[in-house]
Amino acid sequence: MANSPSGDSMLDRLVRILDSFDAKTQSLSVSVLARRADIPVASMYRLLDSLVEHDLLSRDASGQVRLGLRLWELANRSAATQDLRTAALPFMEDINQLLRQNTQLSVLHQDEVLIIERLSRPGSVVNQANVAGRMPVHRTSMGMALLAFSRPEAIRDYLSRHQAIMAATYPDFRAEMAEIRRTGYATFDGFIDPETTGVAAPILDDAGYQVAVISVVLPRQTRAVQSAGLALRTAARGISRALQPGGSA
Amino acid sequence: MANSPSGDSMLDRLVRILDSFDAKTQSLSVSVLARRADIPVASMYRLLDSLVEHDLLSRDASGQVRLGLRLWELANRSAATQDLRTAALPFMEDINQLLRQNTQLSVLHQDEVLIIERLSRPGSVVNQANVAGRMPVHRTSMGMALLAFSRPEAIRDYLSRHQAIMAATYPDFRAEMAEIRRTGYATFDGFIDPETTGVAAPILDDAGYQVAVISVVLPRQTRAVQSAGLALRTAARGISRALQPGGSA
Repeated sequence: MANSPSGDSMLDRLVRILDSFDAKTQSLSVSVLARRADIPVASMYRLLDSLVEHDLLSRDASGQVRLGLRLWELANRSAATQDLRTAALPFMEDINQLLRQNTQLSVLHQDEVLIIERLSRPGSVVNQANVAGRMPVHRTSMGMALLAFSRPEAIRDYLSRHQAIMAATYPDFRAEMAEIRRTGYATFDGFIDPETTGVAAPILDDAGYQVAVISVVLPRQTRAVQSAGLALRTAARGISRALQPGGSA
Repeated sequence: MANSPSGDSMLDRLVRILDSFDAKTQSLSVSVLARRADIPVASMYRLLDSLVEHDLLSRDASGQVRLGLRLWELANRSAATQDLRTAALPFMEDINQLLRQNTQLSVLHQDEVLIIERLSRPGSVVNQANVAGRMPVHRTSMGMALLAFSRPEAIRDYLSRHQAIMAATYPDFRAEMAEIRRTGYATFDGFIDPETTGVAAPILDDAGYQVAVISVVLPRQTRAVQSAGLALRTAARGISRALQPGGSA
């Protein structure tokens, strides 16, 4: 790999550039982008020319930089997430319409919850989750459902990396996991917004391990948690079937 | 930009690697990937290590290479397409349920139709469109609706680049454009599948120019084209409003 004089590889820089944008920051000036990505401004300008030429980034009339549509195309065209989305979307719509609350589809990735798809609903409770956004495992219903239905060795590895915070959050972690497995869904009271409760059911493979999770955000103190859990488990089973080769709803 | 001995830049190679995958080819062996991306196998192995380390690509247990979830995350987190999708999805669901056929959301990009979102429907007519797939402008209702509602200079530029094929397809191109503008939607009989007809209505900005297009694929010879056109125009207007700052359905 060709490196800059600082030993920083082209790929390191590219990832830092892309990582400088997020849902709330869809465009940046070149100087702010250079600072965020920790790249000297002169190098940033040279690199930008190549990235814009390939349409991985684009510059608008005012000079602001944003992601290029070609990057979106290349990253989505063959994404494994497309199959999951295609299988899950009809069931997410059912949940979204029946429970009348925001509905998410997420996976466990690098010890965090990565949100793959989200259907929102006018008038539903606040929900900060964005598509391609991340949330912590230990403080979301999605994360706890994913963890409880992971392979034993994956749970052990996760715990070894996050022992302190899990012990602080869950005095009896084993009982917590057992309860989620017994009911088939996880709940968590408002991590981002204290007025909400998340409910999440795992989408399982043939061996009974999670491949993803479907969840809703309900108003807190609702009595609807149990029925939401059952509805989510029903949707999750439908998605599992749709994910089988040749499968459909 | 640091180049390989052949003058091939790192970015050139990265784009060719990503471009080697598509909806039907979600994973490749290293040797096939190297051949498709036109990169010597030894270089490919070195490059692959870096790409996998950054999770832009991933390798499964059998050694097959696919796109990494981190690439998907970086490309989607701040994508301009997310705002469009969020505004359009509820209306796409309405069309999908009322017309009971596959529904697409697309934009004009680099002289082609780029599909941003798609809702499919069990039992609907065949539709080869995939999310992040491309289709030709001149042989789809989506493309013709986008072209008819583009700025005059954009139409002129497009025509100058595609004169021969447009003249061959549309003996009276001006009349074709005028008719699409008059009715507010475009139709095109089966380009990929002769048994289908596409119907597409543009999503317009304040100045009356297209920012995207919503479309359905109907069985050919249906008498429902006109009512589908009106339903799509209605949905397109709702999406336009939802795209306004602070807008909603």
